[in-house]
Amino acid sequence: MSNYHPLNEAEAIRIAKSIAGIFSAEGELVCSEIGDGNLNLVFHVTQPSTGAGVIVKQALPYAKVVGESWPLTLDRARIESEALRIEGRHAPGLVPEVYYTDHELALTVMEDLSSHVIMRRGLIEGGVYPKFADDISEFLARTLFFTSDLGMNQQEKKTLAASFSNPELCKITEDLIFDHPYTDADTNSFDDHLKEEAALLWSDQELHLEVALLREKFLTHAQALLHGDLHTGSIFITPDSTKIIDPEFAYFGPMGFDIGAVLANLLLNFASQEHWSDNDSARQARRAYLIETVRDIWTGFERKFRALWDAHGVDRIARTAGYQDDYMQRLLQDSVGFAGSKMVRRIVGLAHVADIDKIPEPAVRGQAQVIALAIGKSLIKNNRKLTSIEQLIDIAESAAVRG
Amino acid sequence: MSNYHPLNEAEAIRIAKSIAGIFSAEGELVCSEIGDGNLNLVFHVTQPSTGAGVIVKQALPYAKVVGESWPLTLDRARIESEALRIEGRHAPGLVPEVYYTDHELALTVMEDLSSHVIMRRGLIEGGVYPKFADDISEFLARTLFFTSDLGMNQQEKKTLAASFSNPELCKITEDLIFDHPYTDADTNSFDDHLKEEAALLWSDQELHLEVALLREKFLTHAQALLHGDLHTGSIFITPDSTKIIDPEFAYFGPMGFDIGAVLANLLLNFASQEHWSDNDSARQARRAYLIETVRDIWTGFERKFRALWDAHGVDRIARTAGYQDDYMQRLLQDSVGFAGSKMVRRIVGLAHVADIDKIPEPAVRGQAQVIALAIGKSLIKNNRKLTSIEQLIDIAESAAVRG
Repeated sequence: MSNYHPLNEAEAIRIAKSIAGIFSAEGELVCSEIGDGNLNLVFHVTQPSTGAGVIVKQALPYAKVVGESWPLTLDRARIESEALRIEGRHAPGLVPEVYYTDHELALTVMEDLSSHVIMRRGLIEGGVYPKFADDISEFLARTLFFTSDLGMNQQEKKTLAASFSNPELCKITEDLIFDHPYTDADTNSFDDHLKEEAALLWSDQELHLEVALLREKFLTHAQALLHGDLHTGSIFITPDSTKIIDPEFAYFGPMGFDIGAVLANLLLNFASQEHWSDNDSARQARRAYLIETVRDIWTGFERKFRALWDAHGVDRIARTAGYQDDYMQRLLQDSVGFAGSKMVRRIVGLAHVADIDKIPEPAVRGQAQVIALAIGKSLIKNNRKLTSIEQLIDIAESAAVRG
Repeated sequence: MSNYHPLNEAEAIRIAKSIAGIFSAEGELVCSEIGDGNLNLVFHVTQPSTGAGVIVKQALPYAKVVGESWPLTLDRARIESEALRIEGRHAPGLVPEVYYTDHELALTVMEDLSSHVIMRRGLIEGGVYPKFADDISEFLARTLFFTSDLGMNQQEKKTLAASFSNPELCKITEDLIFDHPYTDADTNSFDDHLKEEAALLWSDQELHLEVALLREKFLTHAQALLHGDLHTGSIFITPDSTKIIDPEFAYFGPMGFDIGAVLANLLLNFASQEHWSDNDSARQARRAYLIETVRDIWTGFERKFRALWDAHGVDRIARTAGYQDDYMQRLLQDSVGFAGSKMVRRIVGLAHVADIDKIPEPAVRGQAQVIALAIGKSLIKNNRKLTSIEQLIDIAESAAVRG
């Protein structure tokens, strides 16, 4: 890593200019650093005369979260760019195109997506994304299937899995999702009114057992190459385009972790609908839209994953009678359990979501937190019993009614 | 690998001589190649004047099985020697000491165990090994616990797991244990009288589903560093010493695969006791000895694994109420399922065991094969239902009575 140094804007422009086929030879390039400075430098390099642009993203050798700073491997830039290439191969058009990488500089030059908005923000602002369920279920089905033992050569998968060994970033997930929210950890952060709720989380042995089992799956079940951090802040969106970004947490893990992340973040927004409008029917319609999206994602995923399996299963064993049904059921259950874990940690753990934290009225925000926590706990506790996406929806809807 | 070449005896002596602390400076060394030539060269280098000796083991770049020859990675020598070192650290005295390795030459110099016999042969000859159950349960408990997320730092485990990526040797297991025996594969080999039994195996959908699930665990559940080929031919033994050898199939997989391999090979010998003696009471006593050993291995393993967990569990989550019980139950079930798979393949698959194949009377041998197959099938079909080692023993004993 001897050549590593954080780039300045002039260097970012020089690197961007060297990418063939993007910019006109005439016309100046301009650059602005648009990252939040916590993990990465993100240079947006554009050519005003043509409207062309690229993103130059460089990992920083540390992470800053809520004022804390700790060292973090630059290897995550390699993992992110390799994951983007693989995802792009299996799910064309659903991730930014990678133009260039430099592993020594921890650098990736990729497609400019400034025509898109971050989906979390879009949802908070009431956006409707009619193509999203289809796109994300396509992304999940294809990237997970084709990097699993069902859809790729099992020996090549083992070699690929070794190259995606990602201990440092997995550690963040292991701590912040599967550990800290269930004990009185320093990193936890929650509003005062949740003190009792938090204490209940810390003493609930039934919940702890389920979380331990989910964590074990995260640690040991190398089913497929995961995105690893697939919340709505990792999705760029417009009504007719979806781009999944930032797979720096990618590693070979349980498929349900990615599926659950998407469902959890829609349900967090669902829980925030206490707030969205004083108009009750508008709020109900918004909730219905979110629930419909959740349903469409799972049913779309299941339909597409099964179709890929039938058409592209790599071997005889994949066609074993009853195996696919058994597998899909376990996938649903894992997705439900991981969705629950992802919701709980967003209410009492270190990193929250704007969908709920940015609700201005404390009472409404508090209500949303209680609903999200109730859904999350129930999904975790019931994950091994669920047999249909409708049961997940029932859990969400009855928590909202009770809330 | 440019320096790789198969050693001759003079070179083996020269390498052996360079190991400090084994041989006297005076006194000639002699060498004989004692490998079977199918996978490795094995030089036994001794000093007749002192009785000192070492084993110089070198991997060959191919495997020969039943006349077939195919290329096979030399990297397995690195994996074997690294696994021996790790096993030796966690289970001192239960593996040969490694004196020297040369990865380019695919070479390991290790402790001479010529005072021991191969356990399969010892069992066939009616040997009794009163220390074995204690030794092997110690080996299993310590090597599996301390390389799992329960007993080692989870980030170091991920890095270690990547270094034990072993696709080529895993492929042999995937094909010969989890695939070929359940279809009419060219590699299968069985006596004529088993044709109908084999056809039943190939059409039994209930069995196929369980095998698919076991194979999935073998492919994806990276619980701990396995030996990977822990049959009685990989164990050197005397009445008061046990040495586990040949971990070239080592990789991070499901713990039950190693435990099941040991149980399966004792049960294969158990099934062969149709033959052992015309004296019925002697045969019964032999069977009782083998069953007692099976029971002692599991109960010893469980007791020791739980004690390690209580004393050395690496984190808070390991102490979650109910988690250890749930884990041990799943370990038993996995062990049962893998034991069954290992038995079936030894009757109809490519590689058989001398315990049964070397029974001279065709009728007696046939009976032993039928019993072994019945036990194996029943263990596979019932693996997810078993809750105690006594149920495995019941299955074995009633198959023997019926047989």
